[in-house]
Amino acid sequence: MYLSKTDILNTDHVRRLLIINAISGIKPANLIGTKSSDGRANVAIFSSVVHLGSQPGYFGIITRPDSDIRRHTMENINENGLFTINHVHADFIENAHYTSAKFSDDINEFERCGLAEEYLYDFDAPFVKASQLKFGLKLVEQLHIKSSDCIMLIGELQHLVIPDNAIDDRDYIDLAASDTVGVSGLNNYYGLEKIGEFPYARESEVPEFKG
Amino acid sequence: MYLSKTDILNTDHVRRLLIINAISGIKPANLIGTKSSDGRANVAIFSSVVHLGSQPGYFGIITRPDSDIRRHTMENINENGLFTINHVHADFIENAHYTSAKFSDDINEFERCGLAEEYLYDFDAPFVKASQLKFGLKLVEQLHIKSSDCIMLIGELQHLVIPDNAIDDRDYIDLAASDTVGVSGLNNYYGLEKIGEFPYARESEVPEFKG
Repeated sequence: MYLSKTDILNTDHVRRLLIINAISGIKPANLIGTKSSDGRANVAIFSSVVHLGSQPGYFGIITRPDSDIRRHTMENINENGLFTINHVHADFIENAHYTSAKFSDDINEFERCGLAEEYLYDFDAPFVKASQLKFGLKLVEQLHIKSSDCIMLIGELQHLVIPDNAIDDRDYIDLAASDTVGVSGLNNYYGLEKIGEFPYARESEVPEFKG
Repeated sequence: MYLSKTDILNTDHVRRLLIINAISGIKPANLIGTKSSDGRANVAIFSSVVHLGSQPGYFGIITRPDSDIRRHTMENINENGLFTINHVHADFIENAHYTSAKFSDDINEFERCGLAEEYLYDFDAPFVKASQLKFGLKLVEQLHIKSSDCIMLIGELQHLVIPDNAIDDRDYIDLAASDTVGVSGLNNYYGLEKIGEFPYARESEVPEFKG
């Protein structure tokens, strides 16, 4: 199937969202935990976490400024400057998915979606107890992306938890061992199966390939 | 395993890169095709493609300004303003991986890595022939991320190709049907298996979960 820019602009709204949200490939499924200044916890699923740097670790999350669904997350991060990123594992994808509903202000999304809050390391934002690989971040930068009218919040890593069975003696993290899942588009979830690993690529060691 | 920010800063450089590049979860494996102003084609693997908007489609790619490996990609996009994003499928992950080597200036990464260039729709940047799901973009914005000293290039969708067997009558794209792969960290590749789909989440339709 071929679609030009014009075809896409003329496509039904829902169809366009489903297609365009899926074409960049698999996305990570993460739950973001936050707390408002008056102490109310929130959790919401994001597929837009992106790695930005490794000293000690910078990660961005992207959302629309007018997003009803993720408004609480963004407000909370701006209020107290802290958030957590928690892997979604296969055994709670349904709970995680439904955190994407637009809940009334008096609802605690953790309770409503059957996810327990967890507080660790004196860090004042909730982790997701069921998540085995999770980290806490401090807000350090916020960018407006003009062309698509998005906001990227950038956090610096403060605390990191990795399950011992998901990291080997070469420091490779195995996302299949932790049962971490990915998401495609808005609502399709994928399990992961390791199919290959290759060394750091040096020009002198690149195999001879046939075209 | 627990690591504080201080632990991470005191960790060996390679170990830190391996861990921090992997903790955000699964990342999409995409090949970016570009062409310099004097007509030299380039292809390089990126795991940092991120969806930013859907009308008609905005996508960002993130890299370091001082990256030797991806320098040609960034230079070419700045020169001619066009690039392609091409899914990596399971049958050519090794070819795709080795595009991450830092090649000499006179090397055509397509040829050296056994990947054929393809030109479609009068678009002046190369697609990857072996890739079934691919799209062409026009550079519309460039942002500097100060905290981690990264560059995000933002492209607007111009042309989109989706294999007919990978999209169903509900407009869901099936990344398992297209054999699209994901990457963890710097060098671990994962196949995808669909494990769940859920409807658009409305508060009134959220199931009763037990905590």
